[in-house]
Amino acid sequence: MILDSFGGPESFREVALAKPVAGEGQVLVKVHATSVNPLDYQVRRGDYKEYVPLPAITGHDVSGVVEAVGPGVTAFKPGDEVWYTPEIFNGDGSYAEYHVANEAIVGLKPRSLTHLEAAALSLVGGTVWEALITRVNLQVGETILVHGGAGGVGHIAIQIAKAAGARVITTVSSQNAGFVKGLGADVAIDYKQTDYVAAVLEATDGKGVDVVLDTIGGDTLQKSPLVLAQLGRVVSIVDIATPQNLIEAWGRNASYHFVFTRQNRGKLDDLARLVDRGLLKPVVGATYPLAEIGQAHARLEQKSNGLRGKIAIDVTA
Amino acid sequence: MILDSFGGPESFREVALAKPVAGEGQVLVKVHATSVNPLDYQVRRGDYKEYVPLPAITGHDVSGVVEAVGPGVTAFKPGDEVWYTPEIFNGDGSYAEYHVANEAIVGLKPRSLTHLEAAALSLVGGTVWEALITRVNLQVGETILVHGGAGGVGHIAIQIAKAAGARVITTVSSQNAGFVKGLGADVAIDYKQTDYVAAVLEATDGKGVDVVLDTIGGDTLQKSPLVLAQLGRVVSIVDIATPQNLIEAWGRNASYHFVFTRQNRGKLDDLARLVDRGLLKPVVGATYPLAEIGQAHARLEQKSNGLRGKIAIDVTA
Repeated sequence: MILDSFGGPESFREVALAKPVAGEGQVLVKVHATSVNPLDYQVRRGDYKEYVPLPAITGHDVSGVVEAVGPGVTAFKPGDEVWYTPEIFNGDGSYAEYHVANEAIVGLKPRSLTHLEAAALSLVGGTVWEALITRVNLQVGETILVHGGAGGVGHIAIQIAKAAGARVITTVSSQNAGFVKGLGADVAIDYKQTDYVAAVLEATDGKGVDVVLDTIGGDTLQKSPLVLAQLGRVVSIVDIATPQNLIEAWGRNASYHFVFTRQNRGKLDDLARLVDRGLLKPVVGATYPLAEIGQAHARLEQKSNGLRGKIAIDVTA
Repeated sequence: MILDSFGGPESFREVALAKPVAGEGQVLVKVHATSVNPLDYQVRRGDYKEYVPLPAITGHDVSGVVEAVGPGVTAFKPGDEVWYTPEIFNGDGSYAEYHVANEAIVGLKPRSLTHLEAAALSLVGGTVWEALITRVNLQVGETILVHGGAGGVGHIAIQIAKAAGARVITTVSSQNAGFVKGLGADVAIDYKQTDYVAAVLEATDGKGVDVVLDTIGGDTLQKSPLVLAQLGRVVSIVDIATPQNLIEAWGRNASYHFVFTRQNRGKLDDLARLVDRGLLKPVVGATYPLAEIGQAHARLEQKSNGLRGKIAIDVTA
């Protein structure tokens, strides 16, 4: 499914292309499943047009099977089940039946996940790992506020934060409170009915949280110091186009970390271990065939899309 | 020298007060020298009025001699030469002949410094230590951009960064290039004549720096990603009232740390060791008697004050 131009969800067009060939250090993967992320519709509408030459194959998640390996590949062989996030600012994306990738960014798929589940986890899992573990160094016993706990990133962040030994407070709309508690959240705040700042302070005896994970943008950066303890950290994985007044961050001795995911195998292996220990499992809220990738994008872009977890795309359907 | 009201440099008034008494865990110090910092004129003009009840003794640096100790004090005895930063949001400041402080925030003055020098270093040294060592974890071999290298904070930051093994690039006006190179700066950029972003990229072969120390405010936060390497860190010690667009920080995987100095003896002892090894020495650019504290404030507030390093205040004059 290619884009000839940037635009709405109708911009995708099905084309027949030759099967790509694995070059030096690359693997050719038969794609079984892919997924949809906010980054994908941002790319589709042209937010990164300077990095994505047209026509383009986009998409940021692959789960599939190695069909062939190029010269010099040592970590994989045909038949291996693999997962990864394509470097789409440096090659093709995943909305296709076949994909080639440098072996350095490819991991062995967690055994306990289906291809649909693995494809639902690669980008968001890698992003959360980078945010909470690599950058923020979340510690056992700390408290974290996860914004949007029922979403694609949020529902993974809750599980990884719990696995790291943190206490998790999260914001959701009321119908998702049970869902996030089932994932391990300690406190679910209904952000539509409640002032989340007051609710977080109440849940922490006025102390505030050690870490805020911003998955939503808007004014989250400038409001975060109001819910942060001294020396607290904010980590944002979203495009923050709104200028923010960070003066409150100063008195809190706060730190802000901005995360734009980088691909590497080590992170996928770390995630796979958590998954196979039963501590992390992506939730697939809806599945679409690749032919309906436009409908999947449109669904994710709706404000009230009724989704829990992620949309997966079945490429074999 | 007290403030009855917040306002201009003329607001200070000399009064005779009873010598304070050291309570439980406190030391009474005969103040030999104090200093002037931007934080001091911000306090004076009322930027922190909710934290500073009037009338107030302000001032953030003490170097002096212990005259008496209160019950339970174990670390100090009368006659000890000490230095520290008063907790003025929790008690009196240093613009006085005597001061009492909790022993936990007091350190033994570096032997190789005069009282004037020690008073010029306590707040700025503690702030730079917290920024570059505690928060940013500056590593040997990294490159740092220090904004305002000839200033009170900047001239200390250059020396501490060099002592930590970093390469130092700094901005100055042209007449101070020799001064900062004498302190150890590797590259001095004349920010009045040159675009500092272009100059930093040129000095780093286009890679950018690992750390930016913001001592100036304004739009430094949003411009910093333009001079940062991937995973670079910005540390700001200034009040940042201007809303900032941090979108460029995202693609750089940048971190921002905001530092509002906290007092503790450990940091002073760390600084004293560097001083006594000959790796750090404050520069006193001008000295005023305590009776002229208003003139000293006025001088520091001038944009082109011709100062290198710090203003010290001689309380014994």
